[in-house]
Amino acid sequence: MHTLILAGGGGTRLWPLSRGCYPKQFIRLFDDSSLFQKTVERALLFSEPNEIYVVTNEAQRFLVAEQLSEMGIEIPQENVLAEPVAKNTLPAIYFAVKTIIERRKSATLAVLPSDHLIEVNEEYKKAFRSAEELAKDRLVTFGIKPTRPHTGYGYIKPGKRINGGYEVDAFVEKPDIEKAREYVEKGYLWNSGMFVFDTRVFIEECSKHQPAVVEAFRSESLSEAYAKAPSLSIDYGVMERTRKAVVVPLSTSWSDVGNFDALYEIFEKDSEGNATRGECLLLDSRNNLIIGERLVAAVGMEDTILVDTGDVILLTPRRDAQRVKKLVETLKSRRDRRVEVPKTMCRPWGCFTVIEEGTNYKIKKLVVLPKRRLSLQRHFHRSEYWVVVKGEAKVRVGDKEFTLRRGETTFIPVREVHRIENASDETLEIIEVQLGDYLGEDDIERIEDDFGRVSKEKGS
Amino acid sequence: MHTLILAGGGGTRLWPLSRGCYPKQFIRLFDDSSLFQKTVERALLFSEPNEIYVVTNEAQRFLVAEQLSEMGIEIPQENVLAEPVAKNTLPAIYFAVKTIIERRKSATLAVLPSDHLIEVNEEYKKAFRSAEELAKDRLVTFGIKPTRPHTGYGYIKPGKRINGGYEVDAFVEKPDIEKAREYVEKGYLWNSGMFVFDTRVFIEECSKHQPAVVEAFRSESLSEAYAKAPSLSIDYGVMERTRKAVVVPLSTSWSDVGNFDALYEIFEKDSEGNATRGECLLLDSRNNLIIGERLVAAVGMEDTILVDTGDVILLTPRRDAQRVKKLVETLKSRRDRRVEVPKTMCRPWGCFTVIEEGTNYKIKKLVVLPKRRLSLQRHFHRSEYWVVVKGEAKVRVGDKEFTLRRGETTFIPVREVHRIENASDETLEIIEVQLGDYLGEDDIERIEDDFGRVSKEKGS
Repeated sequence: MHTLILAGGGGTRLWPLSRGCYPKQFIRLFDDSSLFQKTVERALLFSEPNEIYVVTNEAQRFLVAEQLSEMGIEIPQENVLAEPVAKNTLPAIYFAVKTIIERRKSATLAVLPSDHLIEVNEEYKKAFRSAEELAKDRLVTFGIKPTRPHTGYGYIKPGKRINGGYEVDAFVEKPDIEKAREYVEKGYLWNSGMFVFDTRVFIEECSKHQPAVVEAFRSESLSEAYAKAPSLSIDYGVMERTRKAVVVPLSTSWSDVGNFDALYEIFEKDSEGNATRGECLLLDSRNNLIIGERLVAAVGMEDTILVDTGDVILLTPRRDAQRVKKLVETLKSRRDRRVEVPKTMCRPWGCFTVIEEGTNYKIKKLVVLPKRRLSLQRHFHRSEYWVVVKGEAKVRVGDKEFTLRRGETTFIPVREVHRIENASDETLEIIEVQLGDYLGEDDIERIEDDFGRVSKEKGS
Repeated sequence: MHTLILAGGGGTRLWPLSRGCYPKQFIRLFDDSSLFQKTVERALLFSEPNEIYVVTNEAQRFLVAEQLSEMGIEIPQENVLAEPVAKNTLPAIYFAVKTIIERRKSATLAVLPSDHLIEVNEEYKKAFRSAEELAKDRLVTFGIKPTRPHTGYGYIKPGKRINGGYEVDAFVEKPDIEKAREYVEKGYLWNSGMFVFDTRVFIEECSKHQPAVVEAFRSESLSEAYAKAPSLSIDYGVMERTRKAVVVPLSTSWSDVGNFDALYEIFEKDSEGNATRGECLLLDSRNNLIIGERLVAAVGMEDTILVDTGDVILLTPRRDAQRVKKLVETLKSRRDRRVEVPKTMCRPWGCFTVIEEGTNYKIKKLVVLPKRRLSLQRHFHRSEYWVVVKGEAKVRVGDKEFTLRRGETTFIPVREVHRIENASDETLEIIEVQLGDYLGEDDIERIEDDFGRVSKEKGS
């Protein structure tokens, strides 16, 4: 079985933890592995690394590569497909299916969202084996058996029993609480967003119900295809229309981690019902979610969410967790870059954090991964000082090459070509003090780069 | 008339805004001037600068000096009295009164707390003139006419009317809401903590009612006096016992700024009742107090206090503002230094902020005031890099002296004697990267200092 991981989402409902260029699936929310990495692990239950495909976008391609390399998993680079623009799940899946068919005629394909949390138990494995069987001439979806009348999920009404599952009678939208109770009583299932189908069956049903998508992908170029393709979910575009939809029920703990209240539900709580990350002092406080970067001291607080990311503090009652997107929309309309950019920015070579900004200066901490190097670059408006605080740097400044060890420093004048390399096996940390009249990330000329980012792009 | 400003308080009810070594009276809560500075302005209504006395402690002496110099007010240095230890208001006042008497026999003295907010109107001036008259043979206190039944203030029950005021029938403790309503109806007044008296009358009444205080101050040394003196407020120790207490009513807006809810009441509110400082985005949020250092984004919040000081976030419902002291007590019992030390530490030469701390390194921003210099010092466990980001530094490293301009840098090896001086008329800003195995503030040997802090003290 092949697996397609959908990793192009830019979910901002966990903002400011997630950002436009660092979305939910790549954050380490629960432990050392991200939701994306957990999804890769699930894919490996049924697929070889070379049978795993990932759809993402250009900006997140290196996050995918980085998180795979961290796991020691080698998925062929050509299996990581970058969409030029996000058009919801149907074009993403069609893009991948078309790519697979071009390479090897057809396959059974499991489609997994990368931003859900799901527990793998025996039932999970059994369900996927049933699905593989059913997928010969059906489009299989999975329905999670509800544990409570949840108003944040879509539901599937199962119909006639068939071998290993049910025909789908209807897909139903997120209900209000009364309807949700009714659905749970009647045996409706939560729509999990996971699918298994044969690529030929999928193409057939797509041609039948969404010929515009098929037509779009006949374009000369990918960008043209995406320009033409309608923005559609597979649910709305195909699953709700096809007669071949079946649902396999699945009893396991599952969450779409769709907002901070969902996160609160998943996190472990103390005896007062508080879920906390970071340093907290909570007195007479109950049922709060506190994610801190510095000491959070609270007294008398209840049912409240506080998320501190160093550059932003989010504050909302748990019952309003869904409305965080209103904040994000407002900031987006003001072109506030904190919607897109996290305090710590990932780069193919590691990451950097802006520690402090003042008039004419900026202080950054750079973390360079072992065996990586930044581009050979120069700036036209700023000079830079580097102080190595951890590890060892191979440095080029102008024509000179030398090594900087912990406690050593160097100066990069304006316009001087320079490069940092971490040739060691240990992480390198550098404090960079930038000085100049303009300190934007776009003041960079890349002369040479290991990651194909040559000449005047954004970022460093 | 002389004025005594009580500025030794270490109030932590506005923590984390106020800290042990940076208490409420010195913070710029409302505008460019601190409560202490506003108190000095009030003192100047009736006293010449050389008639103004300040009681504070050794650690805050330079804060007093700094804030006076900022105002361009020259109070003689010998009028700033430092208590070796805080023993409430009675010993503080006695200390000052004794000092004044030793210098010039006797005087009429106004005593003003430095951490209250009070509007100076015509009534204020009239009340003080009445008080000056009454003070010939009375101990005068001021009673603020209540605007509502406040449960956070003590009350004064006025008795027989006398010229310019009332005899005091009773001082009453902070009441519950019902009692408060009764008091307001009956014409009781808020106890303002301000006094006017003749120093001879004060000494007489003190001798009569608190001979232990008088006795303590007969000791050889100040530290002995303070070791012996009981910890007593002037209210409890003298005013409640003397027959000479009178109260002058005063109708003006007044607050003891005793907690964040009091601050909320004073701050200007937007149309939704939110009082904010710093960058905020509030949607569907009402009646909150938000004091931020970075973007605070909130949706659906009501009646909540959030105070962010960069190193600490305080979160509490407004109704629990009084309970912030419980948090402080808990942290104190854990010897958490964030109770005492603010993120930005004041020094006689300016201030410094710890921007970032990591294993073996610390980044500080130093702000050096014009015409000031740090001590000539050295460290035994750390080296330092300095980058000037604003202004111009006169620097001594070892035997060398040189000037560092914006964008210039130097290195201070371990054990090397060094000094920073700002000889210019402009503020100097330096980014300091410290490297070493031990980075505590106490790794400092001061060889020479403009502020008398020679040899191994704490601080830099």
